[in-house]
Amino acid sequence: MASSSSLTLSQALLVRAISHHGTNTSSDRVSLSTLTFPTFSGLKSSHSSSSSSSKSARTSGSRRRVGSSRTVRAAAVETLDKTTETSLVEKSVNTIRFLAIDAVEKANSGHPGLPMGCAPMGHILYDEVMRYNPKNPYWFNRDRFVLSAGHGCMLQYALLHLAGYDSVQEEDLKQFRQWGSRTPGHPENFETPGVEVTTGPLGQGIANGVGLALAEKHLAARYNKPDSEIVDHYTYVILGDGCQMEGVSNEAASLAAHWGLGKLIAFYDDNHISIDGDTEIAFTENVDKRFEGLGWHVIWVKNGNTGYDEIRAAIKEAKAVKDKPTLIKVTTTIGFGSPNKANSYSVHGSALGAKEVDATRKNLGWPYEPFHVPEDVKKHWSRHTAEGASLEAQWNAKFAEYEKKYSDEAAELKSIISGDLPADWEKALPTYTPESPADATRNLSQQNLNALAKVLPGLLGGSADLASSNMTLLKMFGDFQKDTPEERNVRFGVREHGMGAISNGIALHSPGFIPYCATFFVFTDYMRAAIRISALSEAGVIYVMTHDSIGLGEDGPTHQPIEHLASFRAMPNVLMLRPADGNETAGAYKVAVINRKRPSILALSRQKLPQLPGTSIEGVEKGGYIVTDNSSGNKPDVILIGTGSELEIVAKAADDLRKEGKAVRVVSFVSWELYDEQSDAYKESVLPAAVTARVSIEAGSTFGWEKIIGSKGKAIGIDRFGASAPAGKIYQEFGLTKDAVIAEAKKLV
Amino acid sequence: MASSSSLTLSQALLVRAISHHGTNTSSDRVSLSTLTFPTFSGLKSSHSSSSSSSKSARTSGSRRRVGSSRTVRAAAVETLDKTTETSLVEKSVNTIRFLAIDAVEKANSGHPGLPMGCAPMGHILYDEVMRYNPKNPYWFNRDRFVLSAGHGCMLQYALLHLAGYDSVQEEDLKQFRQWGSRTPGHPENFETPGVEVTTGPLGQGIANGVGLALAEKHLAARYNKPDSEIVDHYTYVILGDGCQMEGVSNEAASLAAHWGLGKLIAFYDDNHISIDGDTEIAFTENVDKRFEGLGWHVIWVKNGNTGYDEIRAAIKEAKAVKDKPTLIKVTTTIGFGSPNKANSYSVHGSALGAKEVDATRKNLGWPYEPFHVPEDVKKHWSRHTAEGASLEAQWNAKFAEYEKKYSDEAAELKSIISGDLPADWEKALPTYTPESPADATRNLSQQNLNALAKVLPGLLGGSADLASSNMTLLKMFGDFQKDTPEERNVRFGVREHGMGAISNGIALHSPGFIPYCATFFVFTDYMRAAIRISALSEAGVIYVMTHDSIGLGEDGPTHQPIEHLASFRAMPNVLMLRPADGNETAGAYKVAVINRKRPSILALSRQKLPQLPGTSIEGVEKGGYIVTDNSSGNKPDVILIGTGSELEIVAKAADDLRKEGKAVRVVSFVSWELYDEQSDAYKESVLPAAVTARVSIEAGSTFGWEKIIGSKGKAIGIDRFGASAPAGKIYQEFGLTKDAVIAEAKKLV
Repeated sequence: MASSSSLTLSQALLVRAISHHGTNTSSDRVSLSTLTFPTFSGLKSSHSSSSSSSKSARTSGSRRRVGSSRTVRAAAVETLDKTTETSLVEKSVNTIRFLAIDAVEKANSGHPGLPMGCAPMGHILYDEVMRYNPKNPYWFNRDRFVLSAGHGCMLQYALLHLAGYDSVQEEDLKQFRQWGSRTPGHPENFETPGVEVTTGPLGQGIANGVGLALAEKHLAARYNKPDSEIVDHYTYVILGDGCQMEGVSNEAASLAAHWGLGKLIAFYDDNHISIDGDTEIAFTENVDKRFEGLGWHVIWVKNGNTGYDEIRAAIKEAKAVKDKPTLIKVTTTIGFGSPNKANSYSVHGSALGAKEVDATRKNLGWPYEPFHVPEDVKKHWSRHTAEGASLEAQWNAKFAEYEKKYSDEAAELKSIISGDLPADWEKALPTYTPESPADATRNLSQQNLNALAKVLPGLLGGSADLASSNMTLLKMFGDFQKDTPEERNVRFGVREHGMGAISNGIALHSPGFIPYCATFFVFTDYMRAAIRISALSEAGVIYVMTHDSIGLGEDGPTHQPIEHLASFRAMPNVLMLRPADGNETAGAYKVAVINRKRPSILALSRQKLPQLPGTSIEGVEKGGYIVTDNSSGNKPDVILIGTGSELEIVAKAADDLRKEGKAVRVVSFVSWELYDEQSDAYKESVLPAAVTARVSIEAGSTFGWEKIIGSKGKAIGIDRFGASAPAGKIYQEFGLTKDAVIAEAKKLV
Repeated sequence: MASSSSLTLSQALLVRAISHHGTNTSSDRVSLSTLTFPTFSGLKSSHSSSSSSSKSARTSGSRRRVGSSRTVRAAAVETLDKTTETSLVEKSVNTIRFLAIDAVEKANSGHPGLPMGCAPMGHILYDEVMRYNPKNPYWFNRDRFVLSAGHGCMLQYALLHLAGYDSVQEEDLKQFRQWGSRTPGHPENFETPGVEVTTGPLGQGIANGVGLALAEKHLAARYNKPDSEIVDHYTYVILGDGCQMEGVSNEAASLAAHWGLGKLIAFYDDNHISIDGDTEIAFTENVDKRFEGLGWHVIWVKNGNTGYDEIRAAIKEAKAVKDKPTLIKVTTTIGFGSPNKANSYSVHGSALGAKEVDATRKNLGWPYEPFHVPEDVKKHWSRHTAEGASLEAQWNAKFAEYEKKYSDEAAELKSIISGDLPADWEKALPTYTPESPADATRNLSQQNLNALAKVLPGLLGGSADLASSNMTLLKMFGDFQKDTPEERNVRFGVREHGMGAISNGIALHSPGFIPYCATFFVFTDYMRAAIRISALSEAGVIYVMTHDSIGLGEDGPTHQPIEHLASFRAMPNVLMLRPADGNETAGAYKVAVINRKRPSILALSRQKLPQLPGTSIEGVEKGGYIVTDNSSGNKPDVILIGTGSELEIVAKAADDLRKEGKAVRVVSFVSWELYDEQSDAYKESVLPAAVTARVSIEAGSTFGWEKIIGSKGKAIGIDRFGASAPAGKIYQEFGLTKDAVIAEAKKLV
């Protein structure tokens, strides 16, 4: 990876994104050589550079889209009042429709209906409204776009293609939904530069949009100056009936209004069709009224199929409303243009079929071959390469000025934009000795959060109405609220799923954002779909999950996680961490902060735990490690293994067994994933194959523990639901005790 | 268990409930001898009985609550117009408040705030409005009550205590939140007769209420006759700000209005306080307007603290609105009566403390000892025992008349009420031979559902807008809709979480309801919290989860489950079933229907699968079984293990290995839970300890497979996210092939 010091910040981001790309694919398919770098000077990683001179965009491999000599407008939004000739707009809109039709037809798989219906709003957004630089999809101040109705991804791919993004070439459209392509079946930010977030599971995209808009409002409040609006972009979302039915969208929409996210503009594709048919069968609520109740500004565009001026006017009105998010309900016809399938569920999720494709070509007067972009359409869109480069260059120049005047703020903002962690940030992590007072890991977590917030400008977050139980308040900051958006404590209310999806949006806004969010561990069940998207879309959200076992006591089985540790250990690209004390909690935070491309879940105790001898940050980084050992030659009589609150039990059991002359090794297994990544030699040093006498204890399901204890070992755990009683009583009744560990160990030795 | 034929239906239900009670507790604490049976004749399980004669209620152990000689009113609801003396109402309301205060204080744990604020509406509901029989909490035609804000459970316990339910005696109140008590930290239907559903995880309770109201509307439409309204009850819910913020409540509320559930009346405890403080910090939407948008009738009771007549009038108005559910927003003061803690978060979830308890006693003029119920309050409430018995007796008599006239309908309804499955129902299950055509298990599932719907009157359900993909339509029925509620296809819209929670409500309405619900397997992530409540609350919902692996192909990783099988295998009291073909799908349905006290999840393929030799319904019932074997003496060279769509791969690999002279056993592991329940001898016959050469293959996470293959075996699976491509291509690229199985087998043999 190129050193960021020799590149502009934007370039550095691009390099970073590309080099990290492909984590989930067999090879990195986007290489530097196939991408075009704008070389406008501007923000450098070193503080020395300042002057800004606009050069023409270099091109390599996509020259045909550049070369427009039109004057670059200051802001594309101005075209709202000077519209392109309608015939050309219609031609562009039909190009979008047919790119979608043709790609789905070639793949014989996909969803043509939405792109055909939403092409007009898509065209206006990407051609007339949004500010972006197609040659640098990571330009910080770009407008963000989220296709919450992700199944309609051919809309977005067609738009990225027309706009000149190198990630979606004609060949990519032809490879729609094929192995290794950059045009997968739903939009995936980690596959396709230009896609901001990963959507498909309905309802979450609009919540991601709320997170993106929150991020913008927060950064603008923190860093804008009366003489320099350095952060200033909109977030646009298209969501459908399916998204509207999902509860998570209501949660996020309620918060968007509460926070006054005036620069969030959502288009509701009101087409009255979902997979099962007409929405009349299951969705007859008055959406407008619900959104007004939530506190949104609502506009209805009655003709979304050809009402270009209506759409333009609605966007203009939406932008004029500064204190509320806007929902533009755009009534469209799904599969518009298809003479026999439009306005029916049959056009939602299947290829039209050759016959209907022909009929649609005739119906819309489209004489072209599949995947063809007419020259005038191509020429019209080609201006975006130069315009985008200019927009970025102007912003870079602005930032250079900003940096001269406000160097501290600029340095902080750069850290958030780049994701470069401040030097020595980890020195802020608290350390503990066995003499430090016993404490709940939820409290120790708060010590870490507060220590880290001082050195990590992108750390912000909060709880789903459990801040005082999850211990997540940053004491030096106030609440992020409508009128205090510069603050860093986010109050999510009792909306776990929305919280997770919003956090994904924040994380994917800028690499330096480190959002954390919190609830009781058992309520990950409410937000599991969002956590999975964190993992898939490489969003390094930190999930602060307290009350992590029956140790929470009286609230009973509805509140006591059992299977949750196992369930996340099985989920790809998640770090599931269960620290045992202060040092391990600090270690968990170190790991969580470093891992910006995978989410971390911290399972934390409600109850007090002692500071144990032998625990360490370094140990946590290995996932599993020896805490104490009185054996020699890597041949203990027995290995006792614990995690989290049960490490104390194991340590006490070891003390007793050692008094009886046994050679006992105590191992903490704080993160199975990190342990899996260690060398075979390291693993043999911790769990020698020859030592089959192994006892584990964890206040959760034993599911999966055979992997660690082997077929001769014994796992003590809980394979039933919990109970309502004081915590100590439940531990006793469930047999999670020192005596049980000793008894099992003796059976094996 | 007593034979149901010698008891009234109500008694039989009571016995059934009691004998099944305690699945999750160490002992059955409710015994028949401690419960009072009403002996009104009425519905018998045999069709012979008919005459109805009302006898006085027998009492045992709770005689003091009976003995009121007041005339039994035809319907308690009439008291809405003739209110009890207000001073006595207030005394009763304060009794409720102090029972809650005292129980929380004694436990030093719990939530006094809600009961103190909601005592007035609680009193009016249980004393003046609801129709129930405290001595038979399972009387079919009772009004249902759900405390969606489950943390306020002391409200419900106090009300059950006053109303004369044997499940909540004074001693039970004193054991609040203690080990083995019938008054756990949140309401649990399986612990406390009189509690309908299990709540605590917010927002789901109102969705359960929607399910209960759907059940009533459906049964009323199917079985009521012009001359006999045999099904006729209301569903009441109390929900709080927390429930309102959760997305699931919005999903369910949207459906409730869509379905026109006029007999669903929800009280919104509008107290402006949640755990983090004033709702102003996170919840400023206009709830009334949102609910009007959803299609509810909305009433605002401005004084919920002392406005008894306001509450009564609101209920009267709500009942007059027949075509819409009603939300009664009741503005209350959390912790009403506490001079220093009312209206603050500090009274939400902690004991008041001795000093504040004293101050509250003074403030409300309450001179009594803890847990004391004043004699006049006791006497006032005591009439409910006789009244309830009379209500049930009248209904039993009515049913006897109904049975005489409508014997077929009565038999069906009885089956739904009792949960007794019709004789030989399982003969309806389809069977298959290896010559039967290859088919996707989702299609085979539909064959089973349609076959079963003919013989199981309580089977009904649907999909979250994926009916045509999940293959869940019952072809002989129409849609359950507002104006066709007698039909059995339920259209949930894209609302997975609401669907699950509504299904729980249906399942817990009557033992003979067998609700099924469907979506793509990956979207169990959206409804996991509801599935967990199914498992905990012993609701035998059938989850029809199709598109169960990368085999779904092009939709890509957002739609491809990986960790889901493991995650449910780790969840207590769930049957996770992954059938391989027709016979196994039929077996899965047999198991799912029989298991009325635990939910079943059926993971079904999108892709076609062959009908395999050796599969069987009986095999599925064992969980894991030998499909084919050419070894002798229980000593195969290698055991090949598969589930679902990968059993075909294993079978083909076995064919090849056998041609090379190997002794190969093929084992299907369709349900790990059922296998775990088999005898050691059976397990040894399937997986002999001596045979360590074992290869498993499953298109999902390998997490947990060590348990089955042992430390020397090899698990082939997927420990990364999926990909967007045609299914066959992904199987190849991910190495889920016959050749891979053969190669691994050869390494081990």
